[in-house]
Amino acid sequence: MESNDLKRNVEDAWLQYHRHIDEDTKNVYASYFTHISVFVSEEIRETIENEMKIFASESMGISGSKFSSDDIKNSHLIIGERKLLDTVVSESLKMQDKEIGFEIVHLKSDRKIIISGKTPSDIIYGTFFLIKAVIKGVLPEEIQGIHIAKNGLRMIQHWDNLDGTVERGYAGRSIFFENNVILQDNQKIKKYARLLSSIGINAISINNVNVHEQETKLITKEYSEDVIRLTEIFRRYGIKVFLSINFSSPILIGGLATADPLNMDVKNWWIGKANEIYHIIPDFGGFVIKADSEWNPGPYTYNRTQAEGANTIAEALLPHGGILMWRCFVYNNQQDWRDRTVDRARSAFDSFIDLDGKFLENVILQIKNGPVDFQVREPVSPLLGGLKNTNMNLEFQITQEYTGQQIDLCYLPTMWKEVLDFKMDGKDSHSKVSSIISLAGKRKFGGGIVGISNIGRSEHWTGHPLAQANLYVFGELSYDPEINLESATNEWIILTFGNRREVISTLHDILLKSHSVYEKYVAPMGVGWMVTPGTHYGPNVDGYEYSKWGTYHYADNKGIGVDRTTLTGTGYINQYSQYWRETYENLSTCPDNLLLFFHHVPYQHMLKNGKTLIQEIYDSHFLGAEQVTKMIRDWNKIREFIDSETYEEVLKRMKSQLANALEWRDVINTYFFRKTGIYDEKGRKIFP
Amino acid sequence: MESNDLKRNVEDAWLQYHRHIDEDTKNVYASYFTHISVFVSEEIRETIENEMKIFASESMGISGSKFSSDDIKNSHLIIGERKLLDTVVSESLKMQDKEIGFEIVHLKSDRKIIISGKTPSDIIYGTFFLIKAVIKGVLPEEIQGIHIAKNGLRMIQHWDNLDGTVERGYAGRSIFFENNVILQDNQKIKKYARLLSSIGINAISINNVNVHEQETKLITKEYSEDVIRLTEIFRRYGIKVFLSINFSSPILIGGLATADPLNMDVKNWWIGKANEIYHIIPDFGGFVIKADSEWNPGPYTYNRTQAEGANTIAEALLPHGGILMWRCFVYNNQQDWRDRTVDRARSAFDSFIDLDGKFLENVILQIKNGPVDFQVREPVSPLLGGLKNTNMNLEFQITQEYTGQQIDLCYLPTMWKEVLDFKMDGKDSHSKVSSIISLAGKRKFGGGIVGISNIGRSEHWTGHPLAQANLYVFGELSYDPEINLESATNEWIILTFGNRREVISTLHDILLKSHSVYEKYVAPMGVGWMVTPGTHYGPNVDGYEYSKWGTYHYADNKGIGVDRTTLTGTGYINQYSQYWRETYENLSTCPDNLLLFFHHVPYQHMLKNGKTLIQEIYDSHFLGAEQVTKMIRDWNKIREFIDSETYEEVLKRMKSQLANALEWRDVINTYFFRKTGIYDEKGRKIFP
Repeated sequence: MESNDLKRNVEDAWLQYHRHIDEDTKNVYASYFTHISVFVSEEIRETIENEMKIFASESMGISGSKFSSDDIKNSHLIIGERKLLDTVVSESLKMQDKEIGFEIVHLKSDRKIIISGKTPSDIIYGTFFLIKAVIKGVLPEEIQGIHIAKNGLRMIQHWDNLDGTVERGYAGRSIFFENNVILQDNQKIKKYARLLSSIGINAISINNVNVHEQETKLITKEYSEDVIRLTEIFRRYGIKVFLSINFSSPILIGGLATADPLNMDVKNWWIGKANEIYHIIPDFGGFVIKADSEWNPGPYTYNRTQAEGANTIAEALLPHGGILMWRCFVYNNQQDWRDRTVDRARSAFDSFIDLDGKFLENVILQIKNGPVDFQVREPVSPLLGGLKNTNMNLEFQITQEYTGQQIDLCYLPTMWKEVLDFKMDGKDSHSKVSSIISLAGKRKFGGGIVGISNIGRSEHWTGHPLAQANLYVFGELSYDPEINLESATNEWIILTFGNRREVISTLHDILLKSHSVYEKYVAPMGVGWMVTPGTHYGPNVDGYEYSKWGTYHYADNKGIGVDRTTLTGTGYINQYSQYWRETYENLSTCPDNLLLFFHHVPYQHMLKNGKTLIQEIYDSHFLGAEQVTKMIRDWNKIREFIDSETYEEVLKRMKSQLANALEWRDVINTYFFRKTGIYDEKGRKIFP
Repeated sequence: MESNDLKRNVEDAWLQYHRHIDEDTKNVYASYFTHISVFVSEEIRETIENEMKIFASESMGISGSKFSSDDIKNSHLIIGERKLLDTVVSESLKMQDKEIGFEIVHLKSDRKIIISGKTPSDIIYGTFFLIKAVIKGVLPEEIQGIHIAKNGLRMIQHWDNLDGTVERGYAGRSIFFENNVILQDNQKIKKYARLLSSIGINAISINNVNVHEQETKLITKEYSEDVIRLTEIFRRYGIKVFLSINFSSPILIGGLATADPLNMDVKNWWIGKANEIYHIIPDFGGFVIKADSEWNPGPYTYNRTQAEGANTIAEALLPHGGILMWRCFVYNNQQDWRDRTVDRARSAFDSFIDLDGKFLENVILQIKNGPVDFQVREPVSPLLGGLKNTNMNLEFQITQEYTGQQIDLCYLPTMWKEVLDFKMDGKDSHSKVSSIISLAGKRKFGGGIVGISNIGRSEHWTGHPLAQANLYVFGELSYDPEINLESATNEWIILTFGNRREVISTLHDILLKSHSVYEKYVAPMGVGWMVTPGTHYGPNVDGYEYSKWGTYHYADNKGIGVDRTTLTGTGYINQYSQYWRETYENLSTCPDNLLLFFHHVPYQHMLKNGKTLIQEIYDSHFLGAEQVTKMIRDWNKIREFIDSETYEEVLKRMKSQLANALEWRDVINTYFFRKTGIYDEKGRKIFP
């Protein structure tokens, strides 16, 4: 039998309240939890009271907490909407009215802690903030502070299909759907909503952006009752529900002959549809749409611009306050590999830059972090620096499509943080991606950060238990990209596995290095795409080399890489600001980890670390595989502090990861050895 | 409106009776068709009478043919079983009693034609032989002859699954199955049985050799009624029905804990199962089994030999005269590409050679034509020369898995004929593959030639209308491998499209060259496997290079090919007779079209045609694509003589074939150019 604090309720992820907090902290906080006042709208009252009740009783051993909604005087913990609290404790609340977020105030003399937030999501997140602080042993004196939500929108988008499958899902089948019906397991959804609300998420879209025949009907009466039901669950956690829609809906479910956005019947159809939806769900979030991409229909079908396509639908949503999220993942997926003038990386920028300012106020353009498609290493999308008068969502992929598929450990926040901290003009911190997104989000309908879900019906939600950290820190980062990543990582570790120093330091090290380890053994230096076509797992160096997907590395016996320079290449570099244009254009200033993304260089090219390109490929691949071995050793070291179920599950996956890393190492090394005939300087085993 | 003789009833394939035969032939034959006596068992009487009736009325315009079963005197066409006819016209029948087949006798003075055959299939095939002869305009004087069935067994094996899919099927879904039930469309099956009987086929297995969970139940009560129904249809066309079975049936449907072939419960279970089946289908053919291959269970699971596994099941069938066909496609599909000592090509021989003579008399080992897996060019399987005391089926793949998937035209009989004519000892015609198979087939339970079906629910049965020729000539070749291929090809053309000279000569040319054209633009010189993994269509040079499937070409910047020599390679060559060992081992005698199958050679290696290997690769790929263009031109030339539906369908596919050929040409050429840096001598366009 495992002890109580070793045991984990895997379904509760990072909310392990059965684990008792230490006596010192308990003594300090106990009195605050005896009487709690909750000043909120009915919708989230139960959520907050329940959470407090469970935490107080399970973690703190206080079973008789009293709750009220008006007894400020006798309460020691006061949680509520800013505007409701204003009248009673206004002098202590300093938060600027314009900002969303939450504030925690500690009135030492009165022994009161006051959590006030602007939106339901803020209040719930503030509540969890307190819980986390108590678990971490933060003292009441240190807890005070204002937490501005830098992004008004923190969203999870699901790629779940009604048949129960999840596109690029590596954590089991959909928790929402099966066999073309919406599942009835409200408890599961509730648990999920709770987890999301605990990390500040305030929006969700539940179905895949590739909207197939059946999913197109999600906005019809066939599914309305169940959509309402889901909306009700998420509403209680401060989360708005969106649906992905099909651009051809007017034809497919409307019976029209066209979906041309300038056609009056089409416009009216969307207006009618929006009215219908908002009639039954007045706080419905809106739509997500992938148009003119990978066989999805869009305005190009009718020779209309992306703006014309978006505005017609947005116009229908506007009177209801609904939002249209329009993905910028528009490109030609029937490219000819022989034609080197076409460059898929250019596509998002080329397709949208001239439309800046032409979208209705409730359209949000959704832009992937890189210009291509969630590779392990890509430069930051230049479109993020290009759009000045457009609402924007920055889209990250939490599900690990190209980053290990939740078999290999790849902690993504390190990569996301690099993107968020990237200065589009190279100098000014106002040009940081996080600032640009946050600033764009200040407009009425805002925008923010979107993550593609990595959860499913698997026991640990995320398949790989440690992949929960990606979801957790995604939430934290999307609320405030300026947080300290190391602290946020530790917070997840402590909440999940307790606060033993060995566990924290070991896992901290494993997680923070894992993206770099993964990067070492896969496609080298930003070139990407050397994966098995279709599945996108495991090495296949030429797998996408002669495809229609615009995904090439051009390796020959002399060199490798894509020339995207302005001078001799595809001119992609020209989409950046002057600073990055110059930096990337020039071989001597272009960062080596993006070298092959921007340049075609000979294998003998000397890198900044003094090695030749070919030797760096060999070295990094040997090293990457070695580091996986070390990771497994490290994981073994903390075995006694991890519940056996989680320990074994992680170990099993790490062993698969090692096999994968060895396969990558050998295939990549052999591929380049065969192509170049150049031997490893260190004489290590490369298979001929 | 198309004229009557241009029109084609596509579902009747090569049996286009609506097309009238010419007046001269009609006049010569008319009298023979007025009164017909049919001396056969009840089962096939209707089949033969119907066929004669339709042909006489539709093609010959004779509507009042009289049929009897005993009026020899007044009949001019007498069709029947040899033993029944013996008593009445014995002096005219010269066929040796021991041989199966049919004889046609023309008694000029009596104006009688007598067709006598040994088995139901022979009699029906003889009947069709007469019909074909009349259509071709052969005179009664020239029709006389003995047709020995060189192979007692001429079989079509289906890879159809109960869910309606067809593994490696390129002609639509299964005609037998859908949604886990056996379809009720008896008319469709009857039409199919008729087509098969017209080309001498006398056995069929209806389900995939990969026997999944549901298909395992085909030998249970759940499906018995429908299996009986199918058996009844095929029986009327002289065709025996077999089922593919799962080696683990004793566990999966028998409820036993093991399928160990030496376990007494297992043995008894198979005996009981056989009794059960033969009780309801006394002439049931038997089983086909793929054991210990690609995840299928087999005797290796229990540390038993393939012979021990086979004999247990065969023993159960033996009292009923049932046959067990045991595939030799046994190999390790979890190979490590790094390990060059393992060679998949060795596997069939290594697995079975020591078991020669150890199988029960009703076991037939089923051997693919090549040692690997139906590539466009493989040497002949050495196992065919190795087994001396074992029944054998030679397995061809009519469905075009690696040979164009019925999009690209690839007439396979030219390749099959090379295999059949191949002398295993290099000299003696007794060592010809066809003779070996035929000789082995002389044993009590025989053996013969098996083809994997290329038909499905598609309108033209075979997807590509011209792919019907593969099925047709497969049947003819399996009946007698010594037939003249050119004549058989012409026969199919005439039956299918009529006897216009332009059509015959053009199609003859297109068909007979098509395998060579296809071979030119795909993987070079016997190396194989440069296809898209999974689908097996289109080029992917390294697609299987680092896989677990044992499918490698080892191309580096200096050379390419698999060293299978005895001296420095895997020793596969050692499985051949001395003549081929010496021929293949030596670079100067090894045929160039198999060069890379047997040797790893430098790109500068000089071929027998005076070109370097690399130049030959370039040349053949440019030429292959050119020849497809010419093929389309040729097809266009005979447009006016082809019904428009077939014309357009073929043209559509030829255009796809051209796109495929261009893709192959460019990918292969670029791949090798990138790897070698060697330019095309003729300066043609190779993309960098």
